[in-house]
Amino acid sequence: MEETHFQKELQELKGNLLKMAALVEESTNNAVLSIVKRDSELTQKTFEFEDRINKMEISIDDMCLKLLALRQPVAADLRFITSAMKITTDLERMGDQAVNIAERATSLSQEPQLKAYIDIPRMAELAQSMVKDVLDAFVNGDSGLARSVCERDDLVDGLNNQVVRELLTYMMSDPKTIPRAVHLMIVFRCLERIADHATNIAEDVIFMVDALVIKHHADVEEKRGRAVP
Amino acid sequence: MEETHFQKELQELKGNLLKMAALVEESTNNAVLSIVKRDSELTQKTFEFEDRINKMEISIDDMCLKLLALRQPVAADLRFITSAMKITTDLERMGDQAVNIAERATSLSQEPQLKAYIDIPRMAELAQSMVKDVLDAFVNGDSGLARSVCERDDLVDGLNNQVVRELLTYMMSDPKTIPRAVHLMIVFRCLERIADHATNIAEDVIFMVDALVIKHHADVEEKRGRAVP
Repeated sequence: MEETHFQKELQELKGNLLKMAALVEESTNNAVLSIVKRDSELTQKTFEFEDRINKMEISIDDMCLKLLALRQPVAADLRFITSAMKITTDLERMGDQAVNIAERATSLSQEPQLKAYIDIPRMAELAQSMVKDVLDAFVNGDSGLARSVCERDDLVDGLNNQVVRELLTYMMSDPKTIPRAVHLMIVFRCLERIADHATNIAEDVIFMVDALVIKHHADVEEKRGRAVP
Repeated sequence: MEETHFQKELQELKGNLLKMAALVEESTNNAVLSIVKRDSELTQKTFEFEDRINKMEISIDDMCLKLLALRQPVAADLRFITSAMKITTDLERMGDQAVNIAERATSLSQEPQLKAYIDIPRMAELAQSMVKDVLDAFVNGDSGLARSVCERDDLVDGLNNQVVRELLTYMMSDPKTIPRAVHLMIVFRCLERIADHATNIAEDVIFMVDALVIKHHADVEEKRGRAVP
């Protein structure tokens, strides 16, 4: 009976994490659309979402603390709850990145558009899919899905490197474009950071599910020296 | 008796967190010096430190999980241990930022120095002092010290904004400087992110000690619209 009640609480925790992730996804979407559509209402909406996301972090963390104190879970449940507390931090930071993007929208909308905004929605879509899938992977203990999130991070990095090179070309050929190009670079970096957070969670999920540390080894060496620009 | 043993374990946990923070501090220092002194050995050292930092994250997290499972702490101890697990994540991410800085060192050392490196050590010193102090604040439950860390974050942000403006001037007056200026901007952003992580921890410490959420309100509004460049 007690067990069942605890299982119900864990389900509720999972539901809340998915809700928080959905808010982050929507907030990122609003932020990106605020740039693409030059829509200051969407910028404002992103700022409002931040507050809701922050409040969810606090309430989910509280729920986790209560579960730890009252249910005193062990093994898999313990690891699940402590991981949930780390994930809320990542989700909250993703919300901050969405706000950073929205802030750039304000500056970018005051000048003519530098280039067609094709890469921003593309990269945003990728990042958002990673956020969604990694939370699904976490609540369902699906390490395969988590691995696919890690793989998508390489796509995001590749896209970012490509865009940075393109923006550098703009900057070098016409110094007037520099402020806008720098704003856009920062937007891409924010999206890249959202993807990084999702990847961090994915690594934790794989660690949790497979009890394997893929986090801190492997292709670190080969990644080095690839700093772009 | 049991109590005493648990207290000893908590002391050990605190010691390990301080050790991990010291590694992050040293790694940041090496990364920054590798740029300033154009010293590739220090770049390499930063890469080696990353591995040690990552391993510490895993071992401290394991220790926390064991404490949660075996000691089943409540109230302040519970919050302390779960906070410790969030802090290891922040420290590990700071280590990643140090690596990002070191990667830029490799690129920067292949070209003539763009400007005197005065701001980099200055900002690095600030960021490192924040890392050191926030961990001291955490293990000693010193919310006053944590508050001073939050205040220093504004200095870092101010310094970063100033440097970004300066680098934009370089870029606009001479396009040949753009790649170096972008590398330097990223170095400053990495330092700023280290300071952000320290600030995040500081907010948690204040929350933990004063049970006050200063995290998610206050000067959010006034900060908006100040996006630089």
